[in-house]
Amino acid sequence: MSDSSPSSERPAKRARPDCSEIGVQSPRPAKGGRHKTPAQCTGSPGGLNSSVSALNPNPHICAMLTDFYQITMGYAYFKAGKMDDHAVFDLYFRKNPFGGEYTVFAGLDEVISLLREFHFTDADVEFLQEKLPPDTDPAFFEYLKKIDASQVRIFAVDEGSIVFPAVPLIRIEGPLMIIQLLETPLLNLINYASLVTTNAARFRVAVGDDTSLLEFGLRRAQGPNGALSASKYCYMGGFNATSNVLAGQLYHVPVAGTHAHAFVSSFAQGEERILALAANDKKGDIPAKLQNCEDFIALVKAHLKELVKNASSFTDSGVDPNKGETLAFATYAYAFPSTFLALVDTYNVMKSGIVNFCAVAMALADLGYKAAGIRLDSGDLAYLSVECRRYLQHVAESTSLPHIGKVTIVASNDINEETLYSLANQGHEINAFGIGTHLVTCQAQPALGCVFKLVMLDSLPRMKLSQDVTKITIPGRKEAFRLYSHDGSPIVDILQIDSEKAPEAGQRVLCRHPFFESKRVYVTPAKVEKLLNLYWDGAPTILSKKLPTLDEKRAHLKTQIGMLRSDHLRSLNPTPYKVSVTDQLYKHIHQLWLANTAVAELC
Amino acid sequence: MSDSSPSSERPAKRARPDCSEIGVQSPRPAKGGRHKTPAQCTGSPGGLNSSVSALNPNPHICAMLTDFYQITMGYAYFKAGKMDDHAVFDLYFRKNPFGGEYTVFAGLDEVISLLREFHFTDADVEFLQEKLPPDTDPAFFEYLKKIDASQVRIFAVDEGSIVFPAVPLIRIEGPLMIIQLLETPLLNLINYASLVTTNAARFRVAVGDDTSLLEFGLRRAQGPNGALSASKYCYMGGFNATSNVLAGQLYHVPVAGTHAHAFVSSFAQGEERILALAANDKKGDIPAKLQNCEDFIALVKAHLKELVKNASSFTDSGVDPNKGETLAFATYAYAFPSTFLALVDTYNVMKSGIVNFCAVAMALADLGYKAAGIRLDSGDLAYLSVECRRYLQHVAESTSLPHIGKVTIVASNDINEETLYSLANQGHEINAFGIGTHLVTCQAQPALGCVFKLVMLDSLPRMKLSQDVTKITIPGRKEAFRLYSHDGSPIVDILQIDSEKAPEAGQRVLCRHPFFESKRVYVTPAKVEKLLNLYWDGAPTILSKKLPTLDEKRAHLKTQIGMLRSDHLRSLNPTPYKVSVTDQLYKHIHQLWLANTAVAELC
Repeated sequence: MSDSSPSSERPAKRARPDCSEIGVQSPRPAKGGRHKTPAQCTGSPGGLNSSVSALNPNPHICAMLTDFYQITMGYAYFKAGKMDDHAVFDLYFRKNPFGGEYTVFAGLDEVISLLREFHFTDADVEFLQEKLPPDTDPAFFEYLKKIDASQVRIFAVDEGSIVFPAVPLIRIEGPLMIIQLLETPLLNLINYASLVTTNAARFRVAVGDDTSLLEFGLRRAQGPNGALSASKYCYMGGFNATSNVLAGQLYHVPVAGTHAHAFVSSFAQGEERILALAANDKKGDIPAKLQNCEDFIALVKAHLKELVKNASSFTDSGVDPNKGETLAFATYAYAFPSTFLALVDTYNVMKSGIVNFCAVAMALADLGYKAAGIRLDSGDLAYLSVECRRYLQHVAESTSLPHIGKVTIVASNDINEETLYSLANQGHEINAFGIGTHLVTCQAQPALGCVFKLVMLDSLPRMKLSQDVTKITIPGRKEAFRLYSHDGSPIVDILQIDSEKAPEAGQRVLCRHPFFESKRVYVTPAKVEKLLNLYWDGAPTILSKKLPTLDEKRAHLKTQIGMLRSDHLRSLNPTPYKVSVTDQLYKHIHQLWLANTAVAELC
Repeated sequence: MSDSSPSSERPAKRARPDCSEIGVQSPRPAKGGRHKTPAQCTGSPGGLNSSVSALNPNPHICAMLTDFYQITMGYAYFKAGKMDDHAVFDLYFRKNPFGGEYTVFAGLDEVISLLREFHFTDADVEFLQEKLPPDTDPAFFEYLKKIDASQVRIFAVDEGSIVFPAVPLIRIEGPLMIIQLLETPLLNLINYASLVTTNAARFRVAVGDDTSLLEFGLRRAQGPNGALSASKYCYMGGFNATSNVLAGQLYHVPVAGTHAHAFVSSFAQGEERILALAANDKKGDIPAKLQNCEDFIALVKAHLKELVKNASSFTDSGVDPNKGETLAFATYAYAFPSTFLALVDTYNVMKSGIVNFCAVAMALADLGYKAAGIRLDSGDLAYLSVECRRYLQHVAESTSLPHIGKVTIVASNDINEETLYSLANQGHEINAFGIGTHLVTCQAQPALGCVFKLVMLDSLPRMKLSQDVTKITIPGRKEAFRLYSHDGSPIVDILQIDSEKAPEAGQRVLCRHPFFESKRVYVTPAKVEKLLNLYWDGAPTILSKKLPTLDEKRAHLKTQIGMLRSDHLRSLNPTPYKVSVTDQLYKHIHQLWLANTAVAELC
């Protein structure tokens, strides 16, 4: 074995593989199925486009998806006549996940779906009546039957935007009791969606734009719906495809996949079935050459014999192709002659899998097809990918079939973000990664700590104090702006009291740390972006009527990541992005803080 | 402050709190709701009891919830005429989660639901046709439209049983292609269900039987359905209740909860609303004493004044009850006079929260009610619980209201299994724990690595080899038995070839390690249990028609844990439980292993 092959002869590692080569199907809208959309079930409140209604096929996104204490609090508000007090709550998080310095906001479309459907059925109310004490005022249950989201307003960041700690992702306003009932479902819908999208985006940042990322998490995700959310949001975060067929059908995410080890194990040595390309396979654009193929397996075996004979020119230790694997690959290629991708590690990658793959690839070439690639699912992925590429190139040269040297190499064993960086450091020949467990369970941090805090009630700002300064809420109804530099990158986010004049491009702004007096900076932005937009105003607003498609959100995120300075994105010791408040808000916070903190009496 | 109060005066920490005291409602069957059961939707295949049909309200548990590679493999099997080869697969895991030595099997009822509904609709097939290459044989799609689970057999361990690595949890038999299609959904349904049930069971083992455990994970779970699964399976694992209202409705899990910090913050100082018990509140069994209560808040304030005045006899540093908190607690108690439980850490537990609680508890006592308890959600839980108990007992003594000294203390801040052991070591006065994030996301290990391996095809045993001995599959169609000692505890699980004679009580059995020749032991069991039972035989079997209810599975698990030797259960360095094979199976494994491993040629 030579230590390296000349790099000029290697296929460009960064060349973007054609998705069809890794079994990825392009997204096409499904034509319906067993899963009724809410619009089909209950009639949508008008004017929503099909992509919106298709996004919420989950009957569990409903008013009952809430904590019991929202109901008991609701009753206490009701008894005190406070249920309709006008409340403003902020939904935000305090710390970026995964040791990073950025987060992606996701899940808003499901929040809008919830608001559209938000009500209690008679059966729901009957259930609640059973669970509350027998002396509960019956008027409360009549009240519950009438509530909906028609008095609620939601201002939110656009989905797929990069967001930072303390900045409200959602500001929600309306009757106190209803907003409290919405707390739990909103947190549930935003927390995991944003977390897994962020995780996917980090994997994308780790591999760059030219490597395919495939989400293979269905079997390890937290239940059926956890898996569906994962597939949807990983695609949004920058993955190319999912293995999850239902996610493909429901969300139009491209689907990908080839075969498993069990497929290979299912072919025993000596178990030969004649694979002759039948007449009905020969229609259309299939090359005339295969008209002569009477037995595809025989063709593969002939090439295999040749490869085994010539193996000594490549390796001293010889090859020993497993015969069941030969049959398995031939059978798979026979079914998928134009997209043949084989899992090569069932027995031994270098002695068997890669050799069998090449034999089949040569047989396919005889018939005018180009094999697509191989998948590695165990062992030292960097080393094996390099060795496989060397062998593939060796075969390509000796057979004068250059495409064999350039087939896609997919790797898929227990990969996490760290592995991706480590592989990049080692050097490898992998063109696509299939990622499951670590991605969908967000193993590195399985929950994003979004919180939902009261900031104003009946025009009075409210503030939750804490010994821990990061847990203090910023009181009042606030607007949030992002200030950009001349090169187009975001410099700082700034929160201000809603009545303050918005910052303007070219105008100097004093940005203050919300809690540390001495941390101040002047910024003269080249561009100012208002972060919170009205998505729901008792009914869908123009914005939520035209909610972007999943592909549009995915593209928006890509643009957002492209604008962010690379030091905010890096995996190790990223630079924190600054979130600030205006001078007026700073003073407001500290005034209220002092007013709410009694001075202790010493003696 | 004295350093400790005599322990004889403390309420017994281990006294089991009445669930009603912590806002837990007893389970009652729901009377219907918005969520149709599959039986309602599609007609069940007859004879299933209502608890079974109520357990699968998730429309996403269907044939399309699978990996795309199952479809592509299916087509390759179809083209090779192998789709109906009779296959046997084992579903099992290789390593217990959470560093422990036991796992709980769960999720079987959802597997049975899937089998009942298993088919592809015309729309599903149309979608698959779009995703497969254009030259795919149309006969395949016709074939897909006809498949169902009528030729499938499932042998499984009873749900709620303790299980160990390598022993099949499910043995599934039937046509190769259909079994492969079932791989992904089965893994999805078993993996998280078993993982989170195991996690809950470990929390239960950590606190013992006399402390209440409340699942508060909805806002941090991985989406709506992740949360529902968590609530269902945490209850099965030994939790007493959930905060998730929908889980209460769908699965009849008791629900629990009181109020949040926002409730307290929503009451501003000086914002007084008269809470007079109105005429319609005075019906029924409410004590006559409260007929005189014109203003409940005034009553609370009178007691508070008294407590503040007398504070110096308890603490040197004085108390300073927050006035908004006083109003909040009074309002909440007014709504829930018989189950009043207050969150006492919004401002300051010892200076404000516990004092306000006691004032309200005294006012309630005037009216003939007993306050239920307090909740701590921040700070040093062990210390605060002890300090709160001291104060409660101090007030109980000075007011001659002994129940105030014994109210329930609930703790709920970021608790994991380790915290529970640490709190137990420190000593505390907590009677109930509310647990969210760590429990439902299984933060300590967010995925159980169940695998699904081909072990036999067309009567030939199959074996997946690996460099890593723990990844080698045990080939063939096998039975599994659990051997018990005279004291009723399980000693060892043993796998054997299906045709072997089952072990019998009183008969000596040679138990061998599957891979290490010298590890052997003779066991003469006092009792033998067959682990795998036929749950599905092309249709529901007697067993699956009478699937146990969630409460029955919960009780079964409790019994199972009670039987296991405590050294297997302990958190630190637990003793591994042995899983073995018969001598005949041992020989069979090693014969096949050698037959499948070529002897390398050295020169």
